[in-house]
Amino acid sequence: MIRMGVIGYGYWGPNIVRNFNSLDGSRVVAVSDMNEASLRKAKKAYPHIWATANCDELIQSKEVDVVAIVTPVFTHFDLARKALQAGKHILVEKPFTYTTAEAEELVDLAEKKKLKIMVDHTFLYTGAVRKIKELMDDGTVGDLCYFDSTRVNLGLFQHDVNVVWDLAPHDLAIMDHLIKEKPTAVVATGEAHFDKGMEDISYITVYFPHNIIAHISVNWLSPVKVRTTLIGGLKKMLVWNDLDPDEKIKVYDKGVDIKSRNGVYKLLVSYRSGDMWAPRLEQIEALKLMAETFVECVSNGKNCINDGASGLRVVKMLEAADKSLKKKGEIVYL
Amino acid sequence: MIRMGVIGYGYWGPNIVRNFNSLDGSRVVAVSDMNEASLRKAKKAYPHIWATANCDELIQSKEVDVVAIVTPVFTHFDLARKALQAGKHILVEKPFTYTTAEAEELVDLAEKKKLKIMVDHTFLYTGAVRKIKELMDDGTVGDLCYFDSTRVNLGLFQHDVNVVWDLAPHDLAIMDHLIKEKPTAVVATGEAHFDKGMEDISYITVYFPHNIIAHISVNWLSPVKVRTTLIGGLKKMLVWNDLDPDEKIKVYDKGVDIKSRNGVYKLLVSYRSGDMWAPRLEQIEALKLMAETFVECVSNGKNCINDGASGLRVVKMLEAADKSLKKKGEIVYL
Amino acid sequence: MIRMGVIGYGYWGPNIVRNFNSLDGSRVVAVSDMNEASLRKAKKAYPHIWATANCDELIQSKEVDVVAIVTPVFTHFDLARKALQAGKHILVEKPFTYTTAEAEELVDLAEKKKLKIMVDHTFLYTGAVRKIKELMDDGTVGDLCYFDSTRVNLGLFQHDVNVVWDLAPHDLAIMDHLIKEKPTAVVATGEAHFDKGMEDISYITVYFPHNIIAHISVNWLSPVKVRTTLIGGLKKMLVWNDLDPDEKIKVYDKGVDIKSRNGVYKLLVSYRSGDMWAPRLEQIEALKLMAETFVECVSNGKNCINDGASGLRVVKMLEAADKSLKKKGEIVYL
Amino acid sequence: MIRMGVIGYGYWGPNIVRNFNSLDGSRVVAVSDMNEASLRKAKKAYPHIWATANCDELIQSKEVDVVAIVTPVFTHFDLARKALQAGKHILVEKPFTYTTAEAEELVDLAEKKKLKIMVDHTFLYTGAVRKIKELMDDGTVGDLCYFDSTRVNLGLFQHDVNVVWDLAPHDLAIMDHLIKEKPTAVVATGEAHFDKGMEDISYITVYFPHNIIAHISVNWLSPVKVRTTLIGGLKKMLVWNDLDPDEKIKVYDKGVDIKSRNGVYKLLVSYRSGDMWAPRLEQIEALKLMAETFVECVSNGKNCINDGASGLRVVKMLEAADKSLKKKGEIVYL
Repeated sequence: MIRMGVIGYGYWGPNIVRNFNSLDGSRVVAVSDMNEASLRKAKKAYPHIWATANCDELIQSKEVDVVAIVTPVFTHFDLARKALQAGKHILVEKPFTYTTAEAEELVDLAEKKKLKIMVDHTFLYTGAVRKIKELMDDGTVGDLCYFDSTRVNLGLFQHDVNVVWDLAPHDLAIMDHLIKEKPTAVVATGEAHFDKGMEDISYITVYFPHNIIAHISVNWLSPVKVRTTLIGGLKKMLVWNDLDPDEKIKVYDKGVDIKSRNGVYKLLVSYRSGDMWAPRLEQIEALKLMAETFVECVSNGKNCINDGASGLRVVKMLEAADKSLKKKGEIVYL
Repeated sequence: MIRMGVIGYGYWGPNIVRNFNSLDGSRVVAVSDMNEASLRKAKKAYPHIWATANCDELIQSKEVDVVAIVTPVFTHFDLARKALQAGKHILVEKPFTYTTAEAEELVDLAEKKKLKIMVDHTFLYTGAVRKIKELMDDGTVGDLCYFDSTRVNLGLFQHDVNVVWDLAPHDLAIMDHLIKEKPTAVVATGEAHFDKGMEDISYITVYFPHNIIAHISVNWLSPVKVRTTLIGGLKKMLVWNDLDPDEKIKVYDKGVDIKSRNGVYKLLVSYRSGDMWAPRLEQIEALKLMAETFVECVSNGKNCINDGASGLRVVKMLEAADKSLKKKGEIVYL
Repeated sequence: MIRMGVIGYGYWGPNIVRNFNSLDGSRVVAVSDMNEASLRKAKKAYPHIWATANCDELIQSKEVDVVAIVTPVFTHFDLARKALQAGKHILVEKPFTYTTAEAEELVDLAEKKKLKIMVDHTFLYTGAVRKIKELMDDGTVGDLCYFDSTRVNLGLFQHDVNVVWDLAPHDLAIMDHLIKEKPTAVVATGEAHFDKGMEDISYITVYFPHNIIAHISVNWLSPVKVRTTLIGGLKKMLVWNDLDPDEKIKVYDKGVDIKSRNGVYKLLVSYRSGDMWAPRLEQIEALKLMAETFVECVSNGKNCINDGASGLRVVKMLEAADKSLKKKGEIVYL
Repeated sequence: MIRMGVIGYGYWGPNIVRNFNSLDGSRVVAVSDMNEASLRKAKKAYPHIWATANCDELIQSKEVDVVAIVTPVFTHFDLARKALQAGKHILVEKPFTYTTAEAEELVDLAEKKKLKIMVDHTFLYTGAVRKIKELMDDGTVGDLCYFDSTRVNLGLFQHDVNVVWDLAPHDLAIMDHLIKEKPTAVVATGEAHFDKGMEDISYITVYFPHNIIAHISVNWLSPVKVRTTLIGGLKKMLVWNDLDPDEKIKVYDKGVDIKSRNGVYKLLVSYRSGDMWAPRLEQIEALKLMAETFVECVSNGKNCINDGASGLRVVKMLEAADKSLKKKGEIVYL
């Protein structure tokens, strides 16, 4: 039975507590939050759990095997380092850290200490991403041409990070999970309308080898919520609309067939336009599956898909995107 | 009665002929096409119209007051220059020309000769764009934050231009028409998957003064057709979905209100989320309205919104976008 | 070469003329309309065709092999009978006639005279209905449970028929074409809000053997246009949304599986919820295909799916529905 | 502080317990269920609450002021009568009872005992229904022409009632709440495909004075979930799509204007087609608001909109619909 200590009981923390508490293989033994009201809420909901304002005590406690860090990003590194040094496995809210150097240090430390890191990229455990992964890995989609994701809505303005660090971790983690090639460079543009340096709109292009291109559009100022990803392969093209309650993934038998190439103006193409197919997705709660997986990884020592290395790769891209954004789209090589 | 000569009777030419032929103020007297089959089609549909494979004869003919150039973009400049030199007003298919220098020369020539140029940016005459223009000009939308347009579908691959020159002229012309500020710089990324140098996907960012940002996504490899533009103002936000048969424009009473600013982490914002409103749009055929407007401009000497100067501004941005695209997103100042 | 005479050049007539005129196997030689303006329009569009206000002359003319009757329903019977008596094949606009007796007389007359009748149920020739027919006939759908169609929009009020006679012929013809069983009874309700006896809303239930049930909802007072048909089979369920430009037909691998029956409260069912599939539909103009088929039937003497007998079956149901409607839902056996 | 006893802790009971337990004015003191597993679940979630398999003890307990009956419909009458006789106010799951006679007896008994009955028509407390009510009451919609509701999905097959008693109570309660006129008659059709007498599809027409007509379509065999209500008034027309997360209610400035009436074929109508408007709805949990309202009614003796009389009216219509259905659409006067 893995004993969890959870730091941060704000918006997402309660979900972490509820899930790890309901698993057979784990239970939550301690919760910490600096905010009194949050701590009181935790106490009321779970009278039997140790609730403390002092997260260091939680980290050092011998009753705790795993520390979940569900706090603002700028606190992740310090808390995570302390927890690893105290010999605890860690689950860290996304984004993993605020700099590549921090992420690297944590990954190294965990390796030395033989401890597990999981970064909370919950989306990787959804039925939708699992199905897309399957369709890309088994050759259904064919060679990839592009990955194009839009994640926009009104608010919620963060006070410590811009829209890139807030929304793009989702898309970058999904992209990192789905695309086998390593990204080579990032170009990002965007603008801040309310707070200097805090961009509320951003457009991120990620270049890959073999002419694969990815694009991520994130926006806190959209009147409508959009969560749509297009994935174009040579054999099939997918549209993933995460807001569609029934048919989240549509697989199109559409594409371009090259007939012949005779000189510059002589590319002969034909268009394929066949059936569309919406596969049934597994009805699972992604967070529950992720929690189970983490408990298993901690228990059997295996790696999970959203480990520290995965978190590091995402931070690297976020950092590059932010750097490019600040320089009005200057290319940043990875 | 204005007498039109139309060069090019392929995909779009028949629409130009039909519209100018049905107006009270104009009629089509000549059609030219180098393709025999196209010319035969024109003859069959309009037995009384002079059909010729020789476009120079048409241009020089004294029976023709206005020459419509509905041919591939690389032929526009030569034909347009000849027509202006022959003293004819011209209607030119979009994009106006393939280089800024060409567009400038034509605009200068027309001015000297006191002739009219109209560039066929038909979208400016749709009920949707006219309504958006009204809502932006009358202060309904408020100060602009962003303009974000997506124009994607499967094909049609052009043999002479990439996706930027094929699809983005629409969005750039609309953007140019709607936004009063002058764009300052362009960053474009993209990729070619089938033909080197012929990008089939591109993402274009246009920077404006006052933190206004525009983004245009064009793609020939999308399994679904999307024609959606988001326009975010401080007072209202619009979504224009051109594929919605009934409610193309939705105006959202949504936005961000700044409560106070106290230091870096102290921006207090609140979200406004009120009614949505879909204004009734005029039911007009845009091309017919454009044709009427051109006839009127030629007759009374007034300028139209889609004149040579407008075409030139669009070409300048296309050229900048293409240049940035070839250099992997390097910023190009306008 | 079949020579057509077309009576009625109002809303639909021009489409009939254009289509039969463009076929290899037929041409339109005469058009008749009592309305001067309509006749003038026909003359302008087709200067070489004989245009006459006197439809009797057209019917009797030796130059005419087939008479198309594209006039209000109350005129169908007289014109059709005259045409058949004059030895002409006929194409009659839907609904075929205003009474069952009339339809029977025409069918008998045509049989005696060995002439062809086609009723203009164009929908039967759409890619959508052809695909549904295929999926029902080849066993994909399985035993039918229900057919449920909604056809509503704002207007257009007819001056001579109620909403049942105006809109339901489409659904009844499609239903008659798709369902092999013979309907046994009709129950219809509805209401007239503006003109006594001219119902603008109606709900029609059609009973079939084997517990198959059909329902048709027609409404001239709907603010939104809906054209949706649900077809529930034991193996698959279909949704046909005729307004969806891309995926008109969706086939759901959904259903109910009976596990066991043990007494009244012991029916054990399980739900099947699998993939959805949207088959590609043929891109054909339905009216063109219908015209070709008619020319072929007249030429080779074969029967078409929308022959007089089909028109008669639809009229029988319309008559029954109207009768039931006037008696507030009293069942009318067929 | 009102003390609640809740009978039934299956699908809906936990929601009732959670809501009444979280209110300031009430708390749940007892839960009863005959099913052991359900009772155990209640005990685990609320260790401090008295959980008993014996509902009579709960009903008779002096610790209980109000009894909530969240059990299958055929048990409602007995439990409700006992509770009222024991001097308890009651909250009864919909449909109120299985017969009009039962409902009438309960309403009479409550009146005599000066006790409150609330029937759990939660929909009346949603932001959507409250907004529609407002728009109908303040004259925005104008004189009503029709109310047309569709409530279809796959399953859930009930073992004790058909689709009419399962799904139509929602629509009938909403209709009863919104329309001031009293219904005069019901015509219902439908069919049972799996279990004799247990119809899984039904179409219900309700006649009202002044040519108002209502129609309710309920179906357990639909592959897609639909929750759409059209409401047509002379001034405005509404579409309520309860599955739209953002714009549940759309108000259309569409309609028919009568120009003149000159004889049978001379009704001159014109169509109005103006803006559409989607009002912002209150973001409230309907069940919470209903619970608050019930606590208030019990405390201050006022009536609520979904009182016993309202429940009775709905049962009357359900009974009539079921009777008509069994007789293949024979009209049943109310």
